[in-house]
Amino acid sequence: MAKSRRYKTAREPLGTSPGTLTYVGQEVTHGTRINRIEYNAETFQMDESGRLSLCQLPAIDVPHVTWLDVDGIHQPPVIETIGRHYQLHPLLLEDVVNTEQKPKIEQYNDSLLFVTMKMLHGEKSGAEIDAEHVSFVLGPNFVISFQEERTADIFAPVLERLKASVGKTRRYGADYLLYSLMDLIVDDYFRVLDGIGETLDYVEQRIISQKAGQLTLSSLYALKRELALMRRYVWPLHDMVSLMQRDESGLIRPATQPFLRDLHDHVSQVIETLDAYRDLIPTLMDMHLSTTSNRMNSVMKTLTIFSAIFMPLTFIVGIYGMNFDNMPELHTRYGYFAVLGAMVLVVAGELYYFKRRGWL
Amino acid sequence: MAKSRRYKTAREPLGTSPGTLTYVGQEVTHGTRINRIEYNAETFQMDESGRLSLCQLPAIDVPHVTWLDVDGIHQPPVIETIGRHYQLHPLLLEDVVNTEQKPKIEQYNDSLLFVTMKMLHGEKSGAEIDAEHVSFVLGPNFVISFQEERTADIFAPVLERLKASVGKTRRYGADYLLYSLMDLIVDDYFRVLDGIGETLDYVEQRIISQKAGQLTLSSLYALKRELALMRRYVWPLHDMVSLMQRDESGLIRPATQPFLRDLHDHVSQVIETLDAYRDLIPTLMDMHLSTTSNRMNSVMKTLTIFSAIFMPLTFIVGIYGMNFDNMPELHTRYGYFAVLGAMVLVVAGELYYFKRRGWL
Amino acid sequence: MAKSRRYKTAREPLGTSPGTLTYVGQEVTHGTRINRIEYNAETFQMDESGRLSLCQLPAIDVPHVTWLDVDGIHQPPVIETIGRHYQLHPLLLEDVVNTEQKPKIEQYNDSLLFVTMKMLHGEKSGAEIDAEHVSFVLGPNFVISFQEERTADIFAPVLERLKASVGKTRRYGADYLLYSLMDLIVDDYFRVLDGIGETLDYVEQRIISQKAGQLTLSSLYALKRELALMRRYVWPLHDMVSLMQRDESGLIRPATQPFLRDLHDHVSQVIETLDAYRDLIPTLMDMHLSTTSNRMNSVMKTLTIFSAIFMPLTFIVGIYGMNFDNMPELHTRYGYFAVLGAMVLVVAGELYYFKRRGWL
Amino acid sequence: MAKSRRYKTAREPLGTSPGTLTYVGQEVTHGTRINRIEYNAETFQMDESGRLSLCQLPAIDVPHVTWLDVDGIHQPPVIETIGRHYQLHPLLLEDVVNTEQKPKIEQYNDSLLFVTMKMLHGEKSGAEIDAEHVSFVLGPNFVISFQEERTADIFAPVLERLKASVGKTRRYGADYLLYSLMDLIVDDYFRVLDGIGETLDYVEQRIISQKAGQLTLSSLYALKRELALMRRYVWPLHDMVSLMQRDESGLIRPATQPFLRDLHDHVSQVIETLDAYRDLIPTLMDMHLSTTSNRMNSVMKTLTIFSAIFMPLTFIVGIYGMNFDNMPELHTRYGYFAVLGAMVLVVAGELYYFKRRGWL
Amino acid sequence: MAKSRRYKTAREPLGTSPGTLTYVGQEVTHGTRINRIEYNAETFQMDESGRLSLCQLPAIDVPHVTWLDVDGIHQPPVIETIGRHYQLHPLLLEDVVNTEQKPKIEQYNDSLLFVTMKMLHGEKSGAEIDAEHVSFVLGPNFVISFQEERTADIFAPVLERLKASVGKTRRYGADYLLYSLMDLIVDDYFRVLDGIGETLDYVEQRIISQKAGQLTLSSLYALKRELALMRRYVWPLHDMVSLMQRDESGLIRPATQPFLRDLHDHVSQVIETLDAYRDLIPTLMDMHLSTTSNRMNSVMKTLTIFSAIFMPLTFIVGIYGMNFDNMPELHTRYGYFAVLGAMVLVVAGELYYFKRRGWL
Repeated sequence: MAKSRRYKTAREPLGTSPGTLTYVGQEVTHGTRINRIEYNAETFQMDESGRLSLCQLPAIDVPHVTWLDVDGIHQPPVIETIGRHYQLHPLLLEDVVNTEQKPKIEQYNDSLLFVTMKMLHGEKSGAEIDAEHVSFVLGPNFVISFQEERTADIFAPVLERLKASVGKTRRYGADYLLYSLMDLIVDDYFRVLDGIGETLDYVEQRIISQKAGQLTLSSLYALKRELALMRRYVWPLHDMVSLMQRDESGLIRPATQPFLRDLHDHVSQVIETLDAYRDLIPTLMDMHLSTTSNRMNSVMKTLTIFSAIFMPLTFIVGIYGMNFDNMPELHTRYGYFAVLGAMVLVVAGELYYFKRRGWL
Repeated sequence: MAKSRRYKTAREPLGTSPGTLTYVGQEVTHGTRINRIEYNAETFQMDESGRLSLCQLPAIDVPHVTWLDVDGIHQPPVIETIGRHYQLHPLLLEDVVNTEQKPKIEQYNDSLLFVTMKMLHGEKSGAEIDAEHVSFVLGPNFVISFQEERTADIFAPVLERLKASVGKTRRYGADYLLYSLMDLIVDDYFRVLDGIGETLDYVEQRIISQKAGQLTLSSLYALKRELALMRRYVWPLHDMVSLMQRDESGLIRPATQPFLRDLHDHVSQVIETLDAYRDLIPTLMDMHLSTTSNRMNSVMKTLTIFSAIFMPLTFIVGIYGMNFDNMPELHTRYGYFAVLGAMVLVVAGELYYFKRRGWL
Repeated sequence: MAKSRRYKTAREPLGTSPGTLTYVGQEVTHGTRINRIEYNAETFQMDESGRLSLCQLPAIDVPHVTWLDVDGIHQPPVIETIGRHYQLHPLLLEDVVNTEQKPKIEQYNDSLLFVTMKMLHGEKSGAEIDAEHVSFVLGPNFVISFQEERTADIFAPVLERLKASVGKTRRYGADYLLYSLMDLIVDDYFRVLDGIGETLDYVEQRIISQKAGQLTLSSLYALKRELALMRRYVWPLHDMVSLMQRDESGLIRPATQPFLRDLHDHVSQVIETLDAYRDLIPTLMDMHLSTTSNRMNSVMKTLTIFSAIFMPLTFIVGIYGMNFDNMPELHTRYGYFAVLGAMVLVVAGELYYFKRRGWL
Repeated sequence: MAKSRRYKTAREPLGTSPGTLTYVGQEVTHGTRINRIEYNAETFQMDESGRLSLCQLPAIDVPHVTWLDVDGIHQPPVIETIGRHYQLHPLLLEDVVNTEQKPKIEQYNDSLLFVTMKMLHGEKSGAEIDAEHVSFVLGPNFVISFQEERTADIFAPVLERLKASVGKTRRYGADYLLYSLMDLIVDDYFRVLDGIGETLDYVEQRIISQKAGQLTLSSLYALKRELALMRRYVWPLHDMVSLMQRDESGLIRPATQPFLRDLHDHVSQVIETLDAYRDLIPTLMDMHLSTTSNRMNSVMKTLTIFSAIFMPLTFIVGIYGMNFDNMPELHTRYGYFAVLGAMVLVVAGELYYFKRRGWL
Repeated sequence: MAKSRRYKTAREPLGTSPGTLTYVGQEVTHGTRINRIEYNAETFQMDESGRLSLCQLPAIDVPHVTWLDVDGIHQPPVIETIGRHYQLHPLLLEDVVNTEQKPKIEQYNDSLLFVTMKMLHGEKSGAEIDAEHVSFVLGPNFVISFQEERTADIFAPVLERLKASVGKTRRYGADYLLYSLMDLIVDDYFRVLDGIGETLDYVEQRIISQKAGQLTLSSLYALKRELALMRRYVWPLHDMVSLMQRDESGLIRPATQPFLRDLHDHVSQVIETLDAYRDLIPTLMDMHLSTTSNRMNSVMKTLTIFSAIFMPLTFIVGIYGMNFDNMPELHTRYGYFAVLGAMVLVVAGELYYFKRRGWL
């Protein structure tokens, strides 16, 4: 089944009216968990009760940042309720639940920024990359984060830093919170890259040491496919962060800009590493082909040398196995030994010839 | 015949004066079916009588949207009559009937938008993609849709939604209708992609499990050709929707913009998937070549081992088949058994040698 | 000789002063034919006398379009005379006679547009593409067309339409005439494409049905070269027509714009088809290589099976052909038949083994 | 271990708050060396005591250039102290110590320019390229240079020129000093390129003279990887120097511009040479494959000729080794010699046939 | 030695202060020759005495064009003297003597244009391309040309035209002289292209006629390297001439513009031809590989057919060479002839089988 999923795009049923919320991702059995966190430099408050009534749009002038952490996007009614509270566009909500949506950034009516991207798992070498659909809504003083309810809360490290009030997160605004969450996801890409690098390393070793078989080739091909997939997830981030850097809505404060520049750098580094890896694959394929050819060459040489040596010998002994009445050599005293000697000379001559051609 | 069509572009006869209507598509035996639908948020009216007199240009100030659904473009006089009623440019009509026309968008004198694109069939894996030529004319309060009369009406789902008044279609204007129809076609591309993905999956399986033959290679090649074809049909849509988003004629209302952005996303997704598929093909070719080489290598090894073992043995038994008078070994008591033993040693030595070279 | 021409660019002698007219094309034996046609919506007049005195610059305010159709560019003095009459720049005339000049468009002092392009012949599949150098000069109310004097007049269809007054040509100005002539040439590209498509079809068939030999490969290579050549001729047209669409000199009337847009479409279609064809060639090469490998594989298997079966058998019969005095088996009653039976068992065992490895 | 490092990006621990200084490069055992040099056209003063108190921000109006040469970036506290003295942004300091940071240029609040790039070692052919992380901070009248403490001070030549007051360095400002240091690093790239060129030369020789084995292929692959790595280090310099040329902060004086243009030229030359080298690698791979095929061809021909000659001969002598009672030829007088003669004819015929096919 | 030079960039010693003149080209034994030519439409004067005092900057208002033709750039002091007289920037002079400098154009303080490019030799097919470093300085009414002193004066044809007063050179200004000299160099590129085309032709013939060996492959590889080299020399010219066309300094007069447009055309043609040639090389490599495979296939078939025919026969005759006491067939009257007949049948059967598989 895993196989047949590979080249299949999960889609809502044909002819569905645009703006209808349909969850198309993997099946989930848990409910949706909702945390509401309110903080500023001095205070920190967290409500894990998960009641939907929590999801009130905070007044524009409250002096703290509100973070609504929604863990689970498989229940359209929940998402719709949140959307109603925060006055989100139906198409925005569709992108939140559509796990096939590729990363993008969108501005909604000047005071909302919508960001969707992919959290990647699969750090162990050889494992298939697993992408989790994550979305953010940034308002003037709030952030809503949506994630699939599959693994533990992926934003835990940021929550820890907020609680402990280490780093600058508590002192900066909602935009810095958004940056922190995105940075967390991008940092994870390096872990996935390390896993891929390890596989590449292994495959390369196998090919260079001439131990590569059909399995190694399949790994190489799988690697290529994974790099292509990952590239599709990471590539849009480049432009997305650029767009955030040129933001004109006032949602991104100037103090956050250097951090976005840093994030942009990291994304570039991920893309460059990806491209460097991708570039090596055809050369590895070529090397494997060359290696196979070299090996076949050596097999063929062995065969040819054996044949060239034993065919003439077998012919010679065949001659004196004939039953003609009149074969004078047969009746000489040392004919047998003369023939043996002649055969030694033939072999010596051939060996010399092969040596000179570099086949031995 | 299907073969010889492949690299042939259907064209009107050479030297035809520009603007002459000539149908160059597949032969059609039915007549042209014309539906006229008028609706707004409250009312819905549909005339299926198909009389050409239906095709009156609606007054600019009628409070409903008119949709003229023309099913069949193979009768130039019918198209010309419609063109006269709606005051369409002769070159526009030429593009409506020219089934070889690639997708494009064109603005005619500020109040008409002409869109032509391809409906794709071929969702079953392995089937050739079949493209149907579809065109739209968007006016201030009307849409004319033209389709080839080959399959059932492809716009049925939108018609159903209009009748049932579900979704937003009834409440929005003619531009939203155009969007709905285009969205329907783009949604179908995903079905075709799934068919292609299935074929790719199958070919990949065959190659990895080393079962690929000449037929698999041909499929791969056909796949490549189909992806190239589909790309030519889908690629222009990217710019077309962008142009609609930047529309300055006032034909596209601001409320429709988020939906166009969504459509743009879908088109991008189709193109990316296409390109990802296309990218895999050369690697699959290489893998197949490598697999073939590996297999040949193993065949060669078998041959070489057989030859290397039996050639010396045959030579040895040949020696003692010679008829020399003076061959002392022949007359010893255990000569025969000594030779048999020597041959066992030779074989053992060779097997050891091949083992060490990793050939066994 | 045809071969040695292939990678040779015909050039005027080194060190020639710029602006010197030197004809470098194929040798021509006829003289230059000049037709002067004057027409407007009502009148049509044609002078085929070919006298050079015909080539007078028409007054700016005559109420008809003048078309000077020059058939032959191999006599520099004739071209120079025409150039003097119409006050054409020496470099323009150089481009008219330089058959190696690639397609381009140039504006000369605001009231002259110079267009040069290639007429392609070679619609029969397999024939080499033959390019004819064609140039146009567009003035406010005249067009001069230059063509090589090699085939019949290639502009005959337009002339016919002018005479018969069908289509719009007689009612439109000189710019529409230029468009008609260019459209005629571009239409011919589709014929050449069809020839190429047919060859591609044939080569593809041969390769897929495993009948491709050295000759097929050469065709493929020739195809690649021709597509590259044709691309060099067609590619510049894309920008040229765009430039005409953005013309600011007033030479191109607004009414002609939709037709230029149409021409632009056709050029795009030619380029896309070319690129699609070009893209298939490396895949075909790869397929051929794979096919050859597959075939060799099957040859090798046959050889290996034969060797593996007969080598042991020959060895066994060799044993009992030895002449040792003491070989007990030889003197048993059914030894011979026992050996025959043993050999049948050996063969059966090997056949079973090859069957299991999938070699049979 | 060197192997496993290859595809691993050194990163700070996951979830670290942005702006935290963590050294991720190779382990270093020495302390940090700090030199403070002050000079203008007349005076030159150098303090090698290395006390951190040296790192005072020079007043904006002192009439000399201050160069702080920091040799060692593995002690975060030292870097932090310097950062505090010179009021450097925490993200800037993070880039100074992050040895995985790719080359970049950044402007900080109008009066600071931050440049980081890679010093490359590895001029000996075959050696792996080793990159040292180097950073510069350019202020109105000072330059801070950071380098890893691994080799001798790489800026010694510039220091010598400053001491000896040769060249223009003493007469120009801090921007020229920055240029000199960058130029020094770029000049070194040519040395590395020479080493790579030498390896390429050697590999090419081996392949052309048909002596290439598995080892040569591995070198080629390593070369490709090194060129890719080097490209990632050098490519950003192109834009960086361009940005310095378009500098608007006033930090770069007009008199320094021609030198930056020269630096830009050098960087372009490095990139072009890199790309030219990279371009040759697939062709070399192909040549090697072709060579291997050619060689196998010649081996196969040898085998085939031997088989074709000796198989029929062995068969013929086999016939007359049969023990049938009634074989008339056996009892003729010259039967033996007739058979020998026939075999000579067979061989002669075959040799003639192979000669004609060009196999001999 | 020629080999080891291939991938080596000649550079001044490391750490040399920027702006120091160091000649890095091939060794030259002659002195520097300097010609000073003064001309306008009426007068022409030439001083070949070569005294350095000739190199005076002409007054801005003299009514003639001065051309200083410097033949030899290996004596830095001479170049420095000229530089002082004409007030040239040290970095400009460095580019004049640096034979590794790639083509570029630079504007110096509004009234000087510096152009450096490569003169190519090597028109004979197969010869290595040899690049000569040429530089021009264009002032308001003078041109200085620098060339390596290796061959005869390459500007002789322009000098002849100036002397004879043919063409427009005498009537136009210094900018036209610069154009003429550049045009001369670009014209020579076509000669080099012809040489390359001839080699390509030869290689192609060899490969198609299946006569290509290791030497042909090496030629192909050398060709690729030369095309890459030539491309690096010609490519920058494209932008350089564009820049001259958009010149704003007033150094290029409007009357010279059409000629620059012509020059631009020629450069484009060279680049396109180069790219077309380059594009063919991988296909030729592929064809050669396919050819080799085809040939090996035919060798293998021959071997297999021989083995398949003679192995069974040898086995059969081996059977009747056994020495069993009880072999009834041996004592029948026509046993021998029956066996011969059986063998004929075996051979006929096999030949039929191979025929049907298309191996014969």
